[in-house]
Amino acid sequence: MTETVATNVTWHEHQVTREEREKLKAHHGAVLWFTGLSGAGKSTIANAVDTLLNARGIHTYLLDGDNIRLGLNKNLGFSAEDRAENIRRIGEVAKLMADAGLVTLTAFISPYRADRDNVRALLEPGEFVEILCQASLETCEGRDPKGLYKKARAGEIKGFTGIDDPYEAPEAPEIVLDSDNKGVEALAREVIAYLESKGVVPA
Amino acid sequence: MTETVATNVTWHEHQVTREEREKLKAHHGAVLWFTGLSGAGKSTIANAVDTLLNARGIHTYLLDGDNIRLGLNKNLGFSAEDRAENIRRIGEVAKLMADAGLVTLTAFISPYRADRDNVRALLEPGEFVEILCQASLETCEGRDPKGLYKKARAGEIKGFTGIDDPYEAPEAPEIVLDSDNKGVEALAREVIAYLESKGVVPA
Repeated sequence: MTETVATNVTWHEHQVTREEREKLKAHHGAVLWFTGLSGAGKSTIANAVDTLLNARGIHTYLLDGDNIRLGLNKNLGFSAEDRAENIRRIGEVAKLMADAGLVTLTAFISPYRADRDNVRALLEPGEFVEILCQASLETCEGRDPKGLYKKARAGEIKGFTGIDDPYEAPEAPEIVLDSDNKGVEALAREVIAYLESKGVVPA
Repeated sequence: MTETVATNVTWHEHQVTREEREKLKAHHGAVLWFTGLSGAGKSTIANAVDTLLNARGIHTYLLDGDNIRLGLNKNLGFSAEDRAENIRRIGEVAKLMADAGLVTLTAFISPYRADRDNVRALLEPGEFVEILCQASLETCEGRDPKGLYKKARAGEIKGFTGIDDPYEAPEAPEIVLDSDNKGVEALAREVIAYLESKGVVPA
């Protein structure tokens, strides 16, 4: 079996690199981390950015509550510990996907600065793009598409961000989107313009 | 803000679909799940398949101990519970990556049939390709590239698959690779031929 072992060694030396994966896609991998209150437009804007990127031939993937909470993180609840672990796992998956060469979008409230900073620390400089969806509590509560604020005000949901749990806004996000005053398409185009300016995607 | 909300609704209706992600790549997403004893060639053959696929323009990603145990699953040990959770999380990530349109390769001993079958159940029919790297314990122990069998025989590692913990071979894997008698390149080409025959990648 000496021959086989020798062959193994040769193959091990040629692993597909991140550079080769990115070359195939003609753009870099990155993590677009949308953060903000419930109702601030994270998921909506992330979907709009995803749509614009896909139309331009950019290879993307969107991680959100729908595909994370029912799958990878279905064994996590809403204790402080589980919330941190929720964001940690999402960060690790986003890192793997960026390493795969994908522009990975995440849409989670992710209210705690420390959790987001831990994700940033996992990634290379420039690879983590923190996007604050800025909207007043009034705006978000006025939208309340899922009726969650109403339930939180009624005490039916405990520890709801913005009501009885804090939202720690990023101190130096790469992008701030004014979701109080601008529409989804305009905000999505601001994100695209940023990615072009940084060379993440071709202009 | 009625206008903004209305815009939100419109955008929400256009989410990038798996079909659109796959169209961009000109192939389907899939999970190539390599299983077998330590030393059976999982990682080596998976790397060889990865290299061949990349050279053909297929968008891939390889999940292995290097990028999983130090990241997503760094908070898991080797208890029965943690081993099951290890494979569960890898399966969920592989599912997300296949949904992203990637041909995702995984190289883990994954010794228990139930754990692997749980991953299969997460995926659509045809999407999970179980690949048994078949090699006798003698072959694997003879290779012992990391000296792990030696340590297990000396009792320095407990619960080592094939020594004092069982390996439950798949009953109906999609592919069986004869790693006792064939070289890495020939085995890698068997995997490629299977993927072509099933239309996962273009012939």
